[in-house]
Amino acid sequence: MKIAVDAFGGDNAPQAVVEGAVQALQKAQGFSVLLCGDEAKIAEELKKYSYDASRVEILHAPDVIGCDEQPTIAIKRKKDSSLVKALEALRDKRVDAFVSGGSTGAVLAGATLVVRRLKGVKRPALAPLLPTRKGFVLLIDCGANVDSKPSYLQQFAVMADAYMRDVAGVEKPRVGLINNGAEEEKGNELTKAAHQLLKITPINFAGNCEARDILSGEFDAVVCDGFIGNVVLKYTEGLAGTLMGMIKDELMADTRSKFGAALSKKAFLRVKKKMDYTEYGGAPLLGIDGCVIKAHGSSNAKAFSAAILQAKKFYEADVNGAIARAVETLPSIED
Amino acid sequence: MKIAVDAFGGDNAPQAVVEGAVQALQKAQGFSVLLCGDEAKIAEELKKYSYDASRVEILHAPDVIGCDEQPTIAIKRKKDSSLVKALEALRDKRVDAFVSGGSTGAVLAGATLVVRRLKGVKRPALAPLLPTRKGFVLLIDCGANVDSKPSYLQQFAVMADAYMRDVAGVEKPRVGLINNGAEEEKGNELTKAAHQLLKITPINFAGNCEARDILSGEFDAVVCDGFIGNVVLKYTEGLAGTLMGMIKDELMADTRSKFGAALSKKAFLRVKKKMDYTEYGGAPLLGIDGCVIKAHGSSNAKAFSAAILQAKKFYEADVNGAIARAVETLPSIED
Repeated sequence: MKIAVDAFGGDNAPQAVVEGAVQALQKAQGFSVLLCGDEAKIAEELKKYSYDASRVEILHAPDVIGCDEQPTIAIKRKKDSSLVKALEALRDKRVDAFVSGGSTGAVLAGATLVVRRLKGVKRPALAPLLPTRKGFVLLIDCGANVDSKPSYLQQFAVMADAYMRDVAGVEKPRVGLINNGAEEEKGNELTKAAHQLLKITPINFAGNCEARDILSGEFDAVVCDGFIGNVVLKYTEGLAGTLMGMIKDELMADTRSKFGAALSKKAFLRVKKKMDYTEYGGAPLLGIDGCVIKAHGSSNAKAFSAAILQAKKFYEADVNGAIARAVETLPSIED
Repeated sequence: MKIAVDAFGGDNAPQAVVEGAVQALQKAQGFSVLLCGDEAKIAEELKKYSYDASRVEILHAPDVIGCDEQPTIAIKRKKDSSLVKALEALRDKRVDAFVSGGSTGAVLAGATLVVRRLKGVKRPALAPLLPTRKGFVLLIDCGANVDSKPSYLQQFAVMADAYMRDVAGVEKPRVGLINNGAEEEKGNELTKAAHQLLKITPINFAGNCEARDILSGEFDAVVCDGFIGNVVLKYTEGLAGTLMGMIKDELMADTRSKFGAALSKKAFLRVKKKMDYTEYGGAPLLGIDGCVIKAHGSSNAKAFSAAILQAKKFYEADVNGAIARAVETLPSIED
């Protein structure tokens, strides 16, 4: 198995990417990496580490797609970018999976334009994992499809089911539909129609999920259009930051609490670790004819290592085979 | 000035409502309350307190609308409910404002059906305040309009502007549009069109607001359709609960942290207070031809007292006058 890695994607590239790749190779056997990007710079980074050279290749790609570029245009014009070169390798089956911490828009556009969709899939979807008190919940879609149709949401549910079952090892993933009320008749036009579709879809549909229950642990995956998913994902970041900031402000506001905070430092570090995406890799991009993991832009080496191992699991579990089979026979409702 | 209060709305009614009304009367002068509901039961509750009897009236309404009832049907059928009787008093200008902790759906439906919309307003909107690290942000709409048009969002922005300026005392409220990207060209069909409208609307439009920035303090009000608002509001509750739960779990996981937590108790209570809606009243329902405050269903006496004083301010500031004038001359864009 070979995993392509965009060595020039992410705020800390190429240093963190190369270090992360070396860490991943040390952690697990049975795969090699193809580092995509400026050859000389990658070689220079690699010099810092000791690693099994037979498991590392470099694919020279002198260009880089930045976060401020219009994704579709950048993909079409920058044929020599690390992202496009890596995606071509995935398309041509020269590699089995791909990891990038680059611009989300560019990774989505690139995967769709270069690698193309899985047969039968209407819209690929980005599906990050959010930490709950008990474990994780997959949020799908998270940005790729801001205007969705009920049948897209149905496919998102089927893809989430396959991923959580085959990669996360959840026997019968409980899939919820994010809605403004738990009752079946609640919702906007989209979610009302999607609810009816999900009821006849062969997954473990757990009904509507009010936003207060996304992190309750009652659901293994929650389905929504990309606009809602984007709001939930980014609000998680914003609210967690605000709340931790408030706690810090108040802990520092009196001497007794300050002393208490010093004693509780380890507990807060454990909470931070639980909330920290670097611990559990990146977001799978589901519905592409290849395994793509989008790592967070600010990933460090550890996060890249986790994302690479996640890509390995994604490929080994043959999630895409399961998705392709599932979408072939989905029931539909006439409009 | 007279404020009607639904004595039978909310989980802790009528006890907490009556106690809250008495507290509000003690805190401020210049108004009286009309307690709506079962006369005998209200009188019994009132016996517990000492108060200025000339400032308290009871409007007998033997019936109650429950949270599990279909709002529109309940409003039409239960003419003798505390909610309908109070709304009729507001419609007939026998009172100047109204507070209820009852079913959100019933309050929205009742206000629209009984009191009616302000002239020129397309859709009334519910607008709770969320605590930020620095103060508050008004979130509009929060549940009344799950399928919205760009022109509704424009009106929500204008109503938020009026409320934040005239009630919250913010000179030029910075109004943001919740979106999946800060750039003007980002968004779904609704937000892209709304953005163009807001640009030509005579308010201090602060541009798109990514969800991570809702609580940043950069915005005094954020505008969205009711589905998104519902997700943001309920997710705030769910995520804050999950995070506080994680912190508790970790603080209790080792002896040192446990001791630290005991010392920091007061700091955590202050954080809880900051996050606590009971401190700052309820959510104004904007766009109704009368001042309506929806208190949280689980409000205690303190929360009801705050909501009543908020209703007083809402009326005194003549927000509805400002809204009516503003919506009369709003610029539009041809579809």
